[in-house]
Amino acid sequence: MKVIMDLCVVPIGVGVSVSKYVVACHEILSKAGLKTELHAYGTNIEGEWDEVMAAVKECHEHIHRMGAPRITTTIKLGTRTDRDQTMTDKVDSVKTKLA
Amino acid sequence: MKVIMDLCVVPIGVGVSVSKYVVACHEILSKAGLKTELHAYGTNIEGEWDEVMAAVKECHEHIHRMGAPRITTTIKLGTRTDRDQTMTDKVDSVKTKLA
Amino acid sequence: MKVIMDLCVVPIGVGVSVSKYVVACHEILSKAGLKTELHAYGTNIEGEWDEVMAAVKECHEHIHRMGAPRITTTIKLGTRTDRDQTMTDKVDSVKTKLA
Amino acid sequence: MKVIMDLCVVPIGVGVSVSKYVVACHEILSKAGLKTELHAYGTNIEGEWDEVMAAVKECHEHIHRMGAPRITTTIKLGTRTDRDQTMTDKVDSVKTKLA
Repeated sequence: MKVIMDLCVVPIGVGVSVSKYVVACHEILSKAGLKTELHAYGTNIEGEWDEVMAAVKECHEHIHRMGAPRITTTIKLGTRTDRDQTMTDKVDSVKTKLA
Repeated sequence: MKVIMDLCVVPIGVGVSVSKYVVACHEILSKAGLKTELHAYGTNIEGEWDEVMAAVKECHEHIHRMGAPRITTTIKLGTRTDRDQTMTDKVDSVKTKLA
Repeated sequence: MKVIMDLCVVPIGVGVSVSKYVVACHEILSKAGLKTELHAYGTNIEGEWDEVMAAVKECHEHIHRMGAPRITTTIKLGTRTDRDQTMTDKVDSVKTKLA
Repeated sequence: MKVIMDLCVVPIGVGVSVSKYVVACHEILSKAGLKTELHAYGTNIEGEWDEVMAAVKECHEHIHRMGAPRITTTIKLGTRTDRDQTMTDKVDSVKTKLA
């Protein structure tokens, strides 16, 4: 089962700047061979369910090891059985309808 | 790694009423032995990361089998290493501070 | 336009315990006369769109005044035109289908 | 108060394809003069709180008028008082740390 996910990991208790944790997550996702797209409020990920979820777990474990005592994460995730759809398809299906 | 999750599964392309799919999810989570708490915009779940995530995957697979061609899910999930915390603890920590 | 919302406000840069900020939000929502239901990963709110949104804004302003330099909030919100539905209706529509 | 938002509007009860509703939202946000960035699981928006929220409300009203009886929306939104930060700043703060 393929999934398209929007992942936003927020470490708590490590001060106001969280970009180094986002960088660490990004590296974990890349090493896992997942297709990712960084945006201003999270990272979009495309891949097989189990691989994506394993990477999300690794992000949590790694960020705790980096010293964050608490993490709150917001995820949106979509699956469909009617047809294959990539992240690029999703954006294109909107962009082609914009004048 | 223990997780507290808020899960909201939305089947798309099956009309306006989605309660039977929420019921099916609830049964999957219960059969998995997970502690759950239904609320008006999702279900809170408490358990070990792998068990919770396996149940979420089963919800998606099952809802597709029930006929939903597309699912979009919103998840909030929290982990912490500083101390154990249950769903009940979280609610109590607020309620005891309310007059 | 009536809305049912799930609100989860996370102050960043104020340490690991955030319950006093959740309490402050809860008091703002109550003073606004909104129907609320606290759960383990947020607060459900029911009311008119403008009143609910004004209260959410007041939560952000107040939490900043309490000293939080940064806030990240996750919201789910639902509107419908086919029929009136309360938070209680939503929970009941699932619970009556559970054995 | 400036806000950076991630907005994902999901019309329910209108079938499996929702791109025309996303297009309509995008046009509303653009006409409101808001800075937006479309991605594969939503739209990022930057602007003053009241203007952004007014546009979100208009999206809901307009999508109902287009015929969707039910809408469920997921929003992430961030405010900060320690410094100004744009969507571009957020992405850059991560990208500059990636080798």
